[in-house]
Amino acid sequence: MTYAAPIAQANHSKPSLDVNTLVEGIQACYDCAQACIADADADLAEPRIQEMLRCVRLCLDCADVCLATGGMLSRQTAFDPPTARAALQACVQTCTVCGDECEHHAHQGFAHCQTCLEACRRCEQACNTTVLTFLASLPA
Amino acid sequence: MTYAAPIAQANHSKPSLDVNTLVEGIQACYDCAQACIADADADLAEPRIQEMLRCVRLCLDCADVCLATGGMLSRQTAFDPPTARAALQACVQTCTVCGDECEHHAHQGFAHCQTCLEACRRCEQACNTTVLTFLASLPA
Amino acid sequence: MTYAAPIAQANHSKPSLDVNTLVEGIQACYDCAQACIADADADLAEPRIQEMLRCVRLCLDCADVCLATGGMLSRQTAFDPPTARAALQACVQTCTVCGDECEHHAHQGFAHCQTCLEACRRCEQACNTTVLTFLASLPA
Amino acid sequence: MTYAAPIAQANHSKPSLDVNTLVEGIQACYDCAQACIADADADLAEPRIQEMLRCVRLCLDCADVCLATGGMLSRQTAFDPPTARAALQACVQTCTVCGDECEHHAHQGFAHCQTCLEACRRCEQACNTTVLTFLASLPA
Repeated sequence: MTYAAPIAQANHSKPSLDVNTLVEGIQACYDCAQACIADADADLAEPRIQEMLRCVRLCLDCADVCLATGGMLSRQTAFDPPTARAALQACVQTCTVCGDECEHHAHQGFAHCQTCLEACRRCEQACNTTVLTFLASLPA
Repeated sequence: MTYAAPIAQANHSKPSLDVNTLVEGIQACYDCAQACIADADADLAEPRIQEMLRCVRLCLDCADVCLATGGMLSRQTAFDPPTARAALQACVQTCTVCGDECEHHAHQGFAHCQTCLEACRRCEQACNTTVLTFLASLPA
Repeated sequence: MTYAAPIAQANHSKPSLDVNTLVEGIQACYDCAQACIADADADLAEPRIQEMLRCVRLCLDCADVCLATGGMLSRQTAFDPPTARAALQACVQTCTVCGDECEHHAHQGFAHCQTCLEACRRCEQACNTTVLTFLASLPA
Repeated sequence: MTYAAPIAQANHSKPSLDVNTLVEGIQACYDCAQACIADADADLAEPRIQEMLRCVRLCLDCADVCLATGGMLSRQTAFDPPTARAALQACVQTCTVCGDECEHHAHQGFAHCQTCLEACRRCEQACNTTVLTFLASLPA
């Protein structure tokens, strides 16, 4: 994700929050979306797939919410803080639940779930940081 | 959207909420997503596009969130109520703000914004109904 | 999908092809995307899921391609025929292969695959009609 | 995009093509999708937006196709070469046309279009490399 920072800086609509925070949020969302799509597929290839179904489902949810949130953060024009906050909160919720499920399977030795867990935790933290930045400075 | 109901009913994972409510939520989300993508484009074709920029932006946000929510509602296996609730709340928020912006332009005579307004209000209502159903019966 | 036709007609950017053809293409793409997301989930709930893995995978591919194509058809401003044609051809290909896989399972009695098959065949046909319209009248 | 390689390697469904080629294709698709969403928004913020409308439109198309292709490449289970090839060809087409439009604006001094151009050219090349790998070794 080499391109998020230079495009954000060249945009005449100035970002509503710190650029470094914003860019990390964008990168974390897209990286987590890809990791979740790939992890859902790796789950399908497991011999005991019946035990991975909740992981497949939550990974698909998480990918969808991360892409929506990453798209919203990528736009600076007419940025609407309450709308971004609601999307970020949904992303935190989804990444937390999906990360917990991946952590369960990571402890069982599934390397792809360990990697997806890391992606979910990073995205949860990046979205939480962005929400806390918002909640401290912007109207509800 | 002829297919949502029969697939939901044939799914061995029974839905966590009333099928009619679920199917209306799914239909409203996908219909609103398409309306928002089309309305953002119709905004671009307006001579006084500078006045439509907030509408373009919110329509793109709304399309993304509606697609994520519609996907989540389309899955019944290992349905996670708190995750669905957070997505539905983000969808209500985004549809409300986008619908308000479209209403402003509908009053100015933009027919495409009038249609998109209807899609946003219907989706807002469908998601709210689903959230209220959840909130009344499921843990936080 | 009540909204595609009125927004297409209110758009100042006139569509590059017959509105009825366009609207059917849009509806078929979004309906097929939802059907495929729901069918992939219904596959996960089947006791003999090992036999459904190719169906899950192709349904996820098909949903992604249908959403991209449905979005592209929903935009009329600066419509680029060769780009639309390439997307439509990818959509025909994906719907054909996904529909064939669903047909295999429909013959085994899976009602959700029967419904998804119908969505794929309709979308394949709608995209093919649109491509043939293009190929007959527009440069390569 | 730190996660694509380790999840691809941990997936029991072995990839149908060289992992390095695959991972570069995945990264290029997601990076280009984000760049295009951000560039479309930066275009909206330009004073002479009327001259940027084709760029906005093609960036939205390109983002959609790149996300569909990136998702398809992220899945290894039951990989279908002709379906992937059609998606990759659509992605090459869309990235080429969008990149050409961005190049036009980059020459006019728009820094955000210069960055998006680089993302489009890289994705076009990565998808082309993947197609050529396929076309050399797999049935039509």
